[in-house]
Amino acid sequence: MSGQTITFKTPPKIVSVSSIAGTKESEGIIGKYADTLLKDDMFGETTYERAECKMLIHVIDGAIKKGGLKREDVGLLVSGDLLNQIISASFAAREFDIPFLGVYGACSTMAESLCLSAVFLDGGHVPYAVAATGSHFASAERQYRYPLELGCIRPPQAQWTVTGAGAALLAREGEGIAVTGATLGKVVDFGVTDVNNMGAAMAPAAADTILAHLKESGRTPEDYDLIVTGDLGALGSRILKDLTREKGVDISSNHVDCGEIVYNVIEDEYQGGSGAGCSALVLCSYLFEKMRMRQLKRVLFVATGALLSTVSSGQGESIPCIAHAVTLEA
Amino acid sequence: MSGQTITFKTPPKIVSVSSIAGTKESEGIIGKYADTLLKDDMFGETTYERAECKMLIHVIDGAIKKGGLKREDVGLLVSGDLLNQIISASFAAREFDIPFLGVYGACSTMAESLCLSAVFLDGGHVPYAVAATGSHFASAERQYRYPLELGCIRPPQAQWTVTGAGAALLAREGEGIAVTGATLGKVVDFGVTDVNNMGAAMAPAAADTILAHLKESGRTPEDYDLIVTGDLGALGSRILKDLTREKGVDISSNHVDCGEIVYNVIEDEYQGGSGAGCSALVLCSYLFEKMRMRQLKRVLFVATGALLSTVSSGQGESIPCIAHAVTLEA
Repeated sequence: MSGQTITFKTPPKIVSVSSIAGTKESEGIIGKYADTLLKDDMFGETTYERAECKMLIHVIDGAIKKGGLKREDVGLLVSGDLLNQIISASFAAREFDIPFLGVYGACSTMAESLCLSAVFLDGGHVPYAVAATGSHFASAERQYRYPLELGCIRPPQAQWTVTGAGAALLAREGEGIAVTGATLGKVVDFGVTDVNNMGAAMAPAAADTILAHLKESGRTPEDYDLIVTGDLGALGSRILKDLTREKGVDISSNHVDCGEIVYNVIEDEYQGGSGAGCSALVLCSYLFEKMRMRQLKRVLFVATGALLSTVSSGQGESIPCIAHAVTLEA
Repeated sequence: MSGQTITFKTPPKIVSVSSIAGTKESEGIIGKYADTLLKDDMFGETTYERAECKMLIHVIDGAIKKGGLKREDVGLLVSGDLLNQIISASFAAREFDIPFLGVYGACSTMAESLCLSAVFLDGGHVPYAVAATGSHFASAERQYRYPLELGCIRPPQAQWTVTGAGAALLAREGEGIAVTGATLGKVVDFGVTDVNNMGAAMAPAAADTILAHLKESGRTPEDYDLIVTGDLGALGSRILKDLTREKGVDISSNHVDCGEIVYNVIEDEYQGGSGAGCSALVLCSYLFEKMRMRQLKRVLFVATGALLSTVSSGQGESIPCIAHAVTLEA
């Protein structure tokens, strides 16, 4: 490790992915790539939380099956989600007889889970690991914001929590997309207190991790076909590009944000998508397929998370954020 | 890795620990071993949550200083806590310019954090890592149960959330207590729905991990000077001993539970202590000192967590639990 950046000696491979998209998410480009498109965001369950958990179970099972494995072959499940006490991940893990590491990184969860899985595989501790996360618009909305029934109006800088989930099966050996390295994020807080403006809060964390990664790896943005951030949305992405440009690094020609591309008509969703499921869904459908087809060869996947709670915001705290990056190579 | 159990090739060392104990916690045996004893559980802060966060910052700094290092020497901070969105850990991490991995394992957090830190060190990814967690009676009480002002009476099977925190500085090389292995837990749910009886809910998870560890490592309980569970309390500990005995394994002569020993007069606290800070505090004060003095040579540290939330319980779900174990050798 040099600074924040890890280089894997035996790069683990993502051998298969599985994804599920909510009704709104299925309307956009993701609808062409996701494995399962929901017709009903309740997914046959009686509560939003159970639907979110069921999505996670569905994609974990999906990734294992698509990898030609059985549940008992997998040595590690790393997962987390946005709900208090990560109940979606914990209750999903209950269904699997697999050692479980619960993580919390808000919307950075997919990158954190991928990184941890890769470290265990690189260290030779497990033969196979699954990294998974998801989110649900309705469960997030009622936990973090207002009851849906109130019909509150969202401010223009707000994002829309993605209903969806993604899981990646990683192997120590085999064919797949290599996880060649990772850059672990530090907690960065620029003093943003507007809980409706996560993009602005998270952009400095994304910039911090991307700049650290490029410096420590000796690479330039051009070394990547794509630098993909998690869910900064349109406004957050513009701020990220400004922040990196201020440091003399121009990522504008090969940067894309999962929150910006997840929805078809972005105007309806204000700044775009967010939520732990946002980057997980985009990675485990569209991005993985593009890499599998060698249309993208080297991608820096930078999932970003806002580490606030309703209590911290209620007590007047600003929003600490984090971004973890993993380098993916086809 | 054999099953759930990891053996480290280059066992990382716990080179220093730091701990802080609340007023009630200072009255018992911990008061003789903890670095800092609070005179006021608010720790000079205006909210319980800020006090909890400040305790974490205090012990992280304490472990780094006692290890003769500076903050910038540390390559990784692994931490989590009981609060929604682990705000204590995330806000504590904001104060440090150190790569941060947020975890959620409820009261199993100390073992999970130690295990993750050890995996990163064993893999050669960082030279030093800090594993830390804590809890605060008042912040946990108002999040999980009732406002303190209501003066609700606790049922006899309840435990008392520990106000305290512990941090361990781990190094790839150097003198200290070796982390020679770890056994990652699976999520176990025996169908307990009583949120006041965490000990009964968590005991099956502890039994599952301990039995897996002994089987996979080829060891017997007698190979350990102590098998320490996190916070099962008195009732949970009895259930654990019954469950392991049913499987032909008798741990009764060398088992102790952090929740049972953390308080002086256990009758006042019903079944004893709980909370992420319980096992962290006991490990980073009493247990570490006993190991440093070679009064204990090999300890299996098994922190247990109940992965419920107020939402999951409100929706009628039972309590999924987990226990992670790390092997410590002086």
